[in-house]
Amino acid sequence: MKQINLPRLAVSGLDQAAGSFFRLLKGSALKAGLPPGTPVHVGEHKSAEVRITVIDYDRGGCRITTPAEAGECAAFRNPDTVTWINVDGLHRVELIEKICACFDLHALTVEDICNTTQRPKLDIFDDHLFLVARMQSYNPVGRCLESEQFSLVLGRDFVLTFQEKAGDVFDGVRRRITSGKGKIRTMGADYLAYAMLDAVVDNYFTVLESLGEEIENIEDEVLGNPRPETVSQIHRLRRELILLRKSVWPLREVINSLMRHDENDLLGAGIAIYLKDLYDHTIQVIDTVETYRDVITGLLDVYLSSLSHRLNEIMKVLTIFAVIFIPLTFIVGLYGMNFDPASSPWNMPELRWYWGYPAALGLMAAIAGGMLIYFKRKNWF
Amino acid sequence: MKQINLPRLAVSGLDQAAGSFFRLLKGSALKAGLPPGTPVHVGEHKSAEVRITVIDYDRGGCRITTPAEAGECAAFRNPDTVTWINVDGLHRVELIEKICACFDLHALTVEDICNTTQRPKLDIFDDHLFLVARMQSYNPVGRCLESEQFSLVLGRDFVLTFQEKAGDVFDGVRRRITSGKGKIRTMGADYLAYAMLDAVVDNYFTVLESLGEEIENIEDEVLGNPRPETVSQIHRLRRELILLRKSVWPLREVINSLMRHDENDLLGAGIAIYLKDLYDHTIQVIDTVETYRDVITGLLDVYLSSLSHRLNEIMKVLTIFAVIFIPLTFIVGLYGMNFDPASSPWNMPELRWYWGYPAALGLMAAIAGGMLIYFKRKNWF
Amino acid sequence: MKQINLPRLAVSGLDQAAGSFFRLLKGSALKAGLPPGTPVHVGEHKSAEVRITVIDYDRGGCRITTPAEAGECAAFRNPDTVTWINVDGLHRVELIEKICACFDLHALTVEDICNTTQRPKLDIFDDHLFLVARMQSYNPVGRCLESEQFSLVLGRDFVLTFQEKAGDVFDGVRRRITSGKGKIRTMGADYLAYAMLDAVVDNYFTVLESLGEEIENIEDEVLGNPRPETVSQIHRLRRELILLRKSVWPLREVINSLMRHDENDLLGAGIAIYLKDLYDHTIQVIDTVETYRDVITGLLDVYLSSLSHRLNEIMKVLTIFAVIFIPLTFIVGLYGMNFDPASSPWNMPELRWYWGYPAALGLMAAIAGGMLIYFKRKNWF
Amino acid sequence: MKQINLPRLAVSGLDQAAGSFFRLLKGSALKAGLPPGTPVHVGEHKSAEVRITVIDYDRGGCRITTPAEAGECAAFRNPDTVTWINVDGLHRVELIEKICACFDLHALTVEDICNTTQRPKLDIFDDHLFLVARMQSYNPVGRCLESEQFSLVLGRDFVLTFQEKAGDVFDGVRRRITSGKGKIRTMGADYLAYAMLDAVVDNYFTVLESLGEEIENIEDEVLGNPRPETVSQIHRLRRELILLRKSVWPLREVINSLMRHDENDLLGAGIAIYLKDLYDHTIQVIDTVETYRDVITGLLDVYLSSLSHRLNEIMKVLTIFAVIFIPLTFIVGLYGMNFDPASSPWNMPELRWYWGYPAALGLMAAIAGGMLIYFKRKNWF
Amino acid sequence: MKQINLPRLAVSGLDQAAGSFFRLLKGSALKAGLPPGTPVHVGEHKSAEVRITVIDYDRGGCRITTPAEAGECAAFRNPDTVTWINVDGLHRVELIEKICACFDLHALTVEDICNTTQRPKLDIFDDHLFLVARMQSYNPVGRCLESEQFSLVLGRDFVLTFQEKAGDVFDGVRRRITSGKGKIRTMGADYLAYAMLDAVVDNYFTVLESLGEEIENIEDEVLGNPRPETVSQIHRLRRELILLRKSVWPLREVINSLMRHDENDLLGAGIAIYLKDLYDHTIQVIDTVETYRDVITGLLDVYLSSLSHRLNEIMKVLTIFAVIFIPLTFIVGLYGMNFDPASSPWNMPELRWYWGYPAALGLMAAIAGGMLIYFKRKNWF
Repeated sequence: MKQINLPRLAVSGLDQAAGSFFRLLKGSALKAGLPPGTPVHVGEHKSAEVRITVIDYDRGGCRITTPAEAGECAAFRNPDTVTWINVDGLHRVELIEKICACFDLHALTVEDICNTTQRPKLDIFDDHLFLVARMQSYNPVGRCLESEQFSLVLGRDFVLTFQEKAGDVFDGVRRRITSGKGKIRTMGADYLAYAMLDAVVDNYFTVLESLGEEIENIEDEVLGNPRPETVSQIHRLRRELILLRKSVWPLREVINSLMRHDENDLLGAGIAIYLKDLYDHTIQVIDTVETYRDVITGLLDVYLSSLSHRLNEIMKVLTIFAVIFIPLTFIVGLYGMNFDPASSPWNMPELRWYWGYPAALGLMAAIAGGMLIYFKRKNWF
Repeated sequence: MKQINLPRLAVSGLDQAAGSFFRLLKGSALKAGLPPGTPVHVGEHKSAEVRITVIDYDRGGCRITTPAEAGECAAFRNPDTVTWINVDGLHRVELIEKICACFDLHALTVEDICNTTQRPKLDIFDDHLFLVARMQSYNPVGRCLESEQFSLVLGRDFVLTFQEKAGDVFDGVRRRITSGKGKIRTMGADYLAYAMLDAVVDNYFTVLESLGEEIENIEDEVLGNPRPETVSQIHRLRRELILLRKSVWPLREVINSLMRHDENDLLGAGIAIYLKDLYDHTIQVIDTVETYRDVITGLLDVYLSSLSHRLNEIMKVLTIFAVIFIPLTFIVGLYGMNFDPASSPWNMPELRWYWGYPAALGLMAAIAGGMLIYFKRKNWF
Repeated sequence: MKQINLPRLAVSGLDQAAGSFFRLLKGSALKAGLPPGTPVHVGEHKSAEVRITVIDYDRGGCRITTPAEAGECAAFRNPDTVTWINVDGLHRVELIEKICACFDLHALTVEDICNTTQRPKLDIFDDHLFLVARMQSYNPVGRCLESEQFSLVLGRDFVLTFQEKAGDVFDGVRRRITSGKGKIRTMGADYLAYAMLDAVVDNYFTVLESLGEEIENIEDEVLGNPRPETVSQIHRLRRELILLRKSVWPLREVINSLMRHDENDLLGAGIAIYLKDLYDHTIQVIDTVETYRDVITGLLDVYLSSLSHRLNEIMKVLTIFAVIFIPLTFIVGLYGMNFDPASSPWNMPELRWYWGYPAALGLMAAIAGGMLIYFKRKNWF
Repeated sequence: MKQINLPRLAVSGLDQAAGSFFRLLKGSALKAGLPPGTPVHVGEHKSAEVRITVIDYDRGGCRITTPAEAGECAAFRNPDTVTWINVDGLHRVELIEKICACFDLHALTVEDICNTTQRPKLDIFDDHLFLVARMQSYNPVGRCLESEQFSLVLGRDFVLTFQEKAGDVFDGVRRRITSGKGKIRTMGADYLAYAMLDAVVDNYFTVLESLGEEIENIEDEVLGNPRPETVSQIHRLRRELILLRKSVWPLREVINSLMRHDENDLLGAGIAIYLKDLYDHTIQVIDTVETYRDVITGLLDVYLSSLSHRLNEIMKVLTIFAVIFIPLTFIVGLYGMNFDPASSPWNMPELRWYWGYPAALGLMAAIAGGMLIYFKRKNWF
Repeated sequence: MKQINLPRLAVSGLDQAAGSFFRLLKGSALKAGLPPGTPVHVGEHKSAEVRITVIDYDRGGCRITTPAEAGECAAFRNPDTVTWINVDGLHRVELIEKICACFDLHALTVEDICNTTQRPKLDIFDDHLFLVARMQSYNPVGRCLESEQFSLVLGRDFVLTFQEKAGDVFDGVRRRITSGKGKIRTMGADYLAYAMLDAVVDNYFTVLESLGEEIENIEDEVLGNPRPETVSQIHRLRRELILLRKSVWPLREVINSLMRHDENDLLGAGIAIYLKDLYDHTIQVIDTVETYRDVITGLLDVYLSSLSHRLNEIMKVLTIFAVIFIPLTFIVGLYGMNFDPASSPWNMPELRWYWGYPAALGLMAAIAGGMLIYFKRKNWF
């Protein structure tokens, strides 16, 4: 007999997912009581070194450097070339502060960069935009979403990006800059920012594909051979879709705000059609997430009705056996009674009939047959 | 006894539907990492040749040609006649690019034409409109929706349409152009585009009719003779309605945008009333889809309550039998005990009474009768 | 024992309702492929003759005629009197076309009049308004809603109305015109149109009252004596409310548009307060429909929980009997064993004790009593 | 054993509530077919006399009269003092018409006053406002909401109020006027109207408190000792909250319209802050109603899961007993067989073993013990 | 066997929560009948003394006093320094009135301060803003939310705050004022008000963290070892999230109104970016509350399906045992019958066969084995 205890693997996969799920909140609570604008790093402390990479390019060429000092970044604030400064790792708060100081960012912005539990948002300043988004990736081993905060500052001729850890979805963008393929080197910082957001959103499709495959598997399971683990998998998928939705809905708002934004001329006229395209992709991600949620809800209904049906089947088996044999067992019990034939001729004369036993067998066969016909008529099997 | 395993046919029908359901996403993921504006064909590669058909007409007559070269299309960009260029098959990307180049389309537009997982949308350019919709058809054999992307470019005197494969809902439109029936030959390219959208939306009604008949069948089944397969059919229908909804909701937005659009004069004043009519039809499709979803949700409730009721019935049968016979079986067991009458006069004197056996039978009949009366009073049968 | 098969009557009532439910869609599908503006009658073909009635009135008096020819209607297009032309029956399309031609209606309008599966809507033209609504009536025999399309064209001094069949809710309006009671004869065509819409909306209250009574009956049944038929009745009512909602929600939009409409002066200033009143009534209908839906959803919950409770009760009965008698049956079986006393003094010496039998009876009584006390303590009965 | 039949009291309480619930619609249906603006009283006909009370006051003092004739009201239409005319009882339609005629009210207004099934609404006229609201009170005996229509006409220096029956929530307002306490006598008719609406809304809090106490009781029941009556009580409460919501949601709109209203100067500038306060209270009522609905939905879930849990417990008891005793009963049956030892040495030699009986007893004890250990391990008790 | 009675502890925790839940309404009902603007304290009467604390600061330094008389507060209304007057305890209404009189607050404002069941709101006056919010804290012992009303009046150079009891989340703000750390001493009263709201919202994250941990625990329980108490815990958490949501949704509106507010110049230009940050935090709280609600709803589904699954398992055990042993018990009963062999050679000749008993044993073993194979094939264990 199967136990209801879920197998260890499924639970631990869930635990991992739960960890990242609830971790998103714990950071913010640490900060309660501190004055606003105090940057505190609230992600997991990575042992790895913080790495700063500067890519400086124009139509002519591109130069990649990795400054040892945060202060060196100020040198790249020249209006001739587009500069992309990427920071991997956020736990050295004073370093982040120094970089931000080079570009005159507000204290609240520095705080938001370090607090990695931000909701995607767009802050519009006089001479730069500040944008927070989340990069999602799907860990196929632990079968859970992994989420990383991605902050972007777009100035007139520079883009600053801050990530929690090394490794990202921007390799394609880097390759295009270094190789000079596509139009990226001929465009300004606004196109660079767009290209990065496009990479983030495109990556959501990869995540959705993985989730879609899991849903397909679970669907097969639910319809073919539903098991109790299925429910915890449905629960896990549902929670991951909630998480995904939590990062992509506000991203839609952010991109929508970018599209309508025309207070300062950070975004050139030519970028509008690209933002519209990006917006359409975001809507498509949202659409798919909502569709998946609908499908998963439907799967739970199917699972529950299949449990109910299975119970019906089990009870039918039990009932058919019980109802057929209970009268028979009564009859054999009846003729097992020990009423004394010597005391009275009325004491079980059947036992002494010539055809007594065959008649009893026949009676029982008739009862069993009648029952079977009755159940057949009721479509019980 | 029926097994809970679903019959092969139903499952495989579902698999097919699931295939087309999840396929809609996989394409987009292939593209992650490529620069924006890179056209990649993400549908299923058709072995069939790409076919270009040009219909060129004016009030006077109409000419149909099938150019061998994509470059020949440029010749049709003359302002005197209305030209409809239709392309069946999207897997030869370079060919699509050439045709689009003839009409100066944006790189992102070409990308959207080839990526067949687009959400319906409208892009407004200075001298043309770009519109994506989905054609749905119902495959009665596999009992699943089949979906095809349909892209339309409306210029001042031309319409370009791109479809994934040959065979469409535009035969009526073609017939009207060639025969000169109706007002289509007297109107401009805007009316042609409207006529095609109208054909697409009218076709949704055909799909809805097929789904409506399936829902009616399932309703009969649920109310008359609910079976476990019914749930998987309800699940399949629900998923198909989700898919249908996903294509028709954004189509409503598209047509609404067309109605409000007056930035350039691509849409003549006379077309407004036709677009309003089209919009009303789209709303009616949406209304019906939502109604079907409501009805299907209701059917699942009915199915579950019928399962519960059936379980109640089964348990009643079991309980009536068990409760009547359990005391009787106890009594016959009682008088089957072997207490030795020789050891004591108190050892089962009943067995030696003159009316012992008839009395026992009478007692049992009384118990059974009492039970039956009790159940009758409780309305158990 | 009751069968789960629903009684014939209920099912057939449902079938009828389902027929009218799904019929609303089939018509539209017939039209796919035809050019826009082709009027096709898509309702059920009535054998009855099409009947045209003309009521022509002013402050002074009123004249009722039934023209034999559709062309005669043109004569009533005079600006001095208010003319109401009513057409019962829509299957003779060419006749409808002729009448519409007399008043210069658009081809799409004629199409909408004949296609009886329209969603309620308002089309505003330069010199007339076109309005579609649905009249609902409740058929107490088949216990289902019957729905009929009602089209109204309001011109400067005429009102055209088109209905699917004879018999309507406008008898009160006709009586007021002929008798000259109320202010109807002193007002223009706009007031006549309002009076008819008012009659349509007032009739919804009658329908709601019938549905309300059915809900009350079902509520009594669910709380007093829930039966399996109850679920199919709940399902039927739910579907009828969906239908009602589908006709009244867009009607609200129509009346709202009428209230805000001031592009042409078809609606006089004095009519505004009447339209506001009509709008309030429509809102009240919507409110009640939504309330009924809430109540019905609640009833299904109550029904399901009553099924669950009943199952609990049945299982309690079974369990009490089984748990009391199972140990007793074991004991009587024990002393029915045939271990040979001659082979060993340990072979069932109880059978030869002097108080053996009474002791066994006492033991069994004690067990049964203990069990009863245990169940009493657990509040099982 | 408990019967599923609900106790008479609960059902009858529900019937009463249902009566008032469905009564709200029946009135409107009576009117179908009558011309608009025909006042018909559609509430329950009260035998009590209609009572008119006039309170006429200014900063200096206040005078209360009860005019015998409706026509006397016209005398109070003087601009110097504020006049409050209150009418208890609406069944003498001609009397209402006379009073309304004194103040030049529209025929539709008179109709709305008499039709007591109105949805709360605000009609704005040139020189007066017409407002309908509902007063709710909680009948603790029948445990149901009682609802009464309250119509208010606010003119420049008068307020007319119409109620269905005597007895209301305005005693506090009257006391303040007669005693001259507060600022009411120093303010105009607009403040009087506000004070009355404030009393109506404050009274909703009293009703909510009663409902809140009932919900608390039901919550205790559901968590402690769920009974089948609980479901019908939950259903009743849910319906009452639906009713309450139906009266308070449109009231919010009414007060919101009052706040934004500045077409005529009936509402003085000083009244704005009071209306804002009133609006906040209405929002609070709505908030609480929605919260209660959420809680009640949650309670039903808890009830259903507690039923499921209870069924599990019952089935565990049954299963433990059955599974332990079924093998034992088999064994005792086995040794109750009558195979003839004389025919063969293989015919049940156990019966003639020296330790046969004790061995059989031991075997049975071992089986029972094993079963108990197995169930213990599975955490079944 | 476990009882369904919930353990005392859980229920009493729930009672406490329910108390605070329903207490929020009772106060308002006390007030019905009183004139508007009558301040009545409707919270729990605290025995503690009301405590007034005045913090008066400017760039140069800060002074803390605790005035004995309410009237002394008037002295602090000087335009040179920022004054924060905090009042702990609201039960001495006349004292609150005196303080409010010093700053010319409206009577309705005083009423709102004392009535501690207010919904968060913002009232805008000519020379001050009045704002009500709720401070939530999580009581880890009773495992319930504790809620306290917090009123704030922001004038040009003063902030008045009113709390129900001593002890709050403003210690950090006080410390920053006294120590002069951060920019608080260099900014005006508007920044002080912002800092306090920021502390309130930051505290919500602490509460959410506690709730998140509880949800994590319950999730582990539901997936690992679901118990009946779990449901009442889910219910409690759900209710607490409803409460939290009720305080944070209107707070969002309040902060949004503050952001858009520019009627008077109480809020300096520099404060806008801080309010935007605060608004983002509030949105994040709302997001998390909604996510938690989704997760909890999912947990209930998982719990119910795990109950259903468990029932299936129990019934399988019962059915396997019953179905295997019922035929065996019939057979042993059969050969326990007492048909007299002397009367007829057909009376149970099996009993006298040489291999009779072994054959019967073999038959029974075959039946049991067959059953086991059947169940194995049906995947029952």
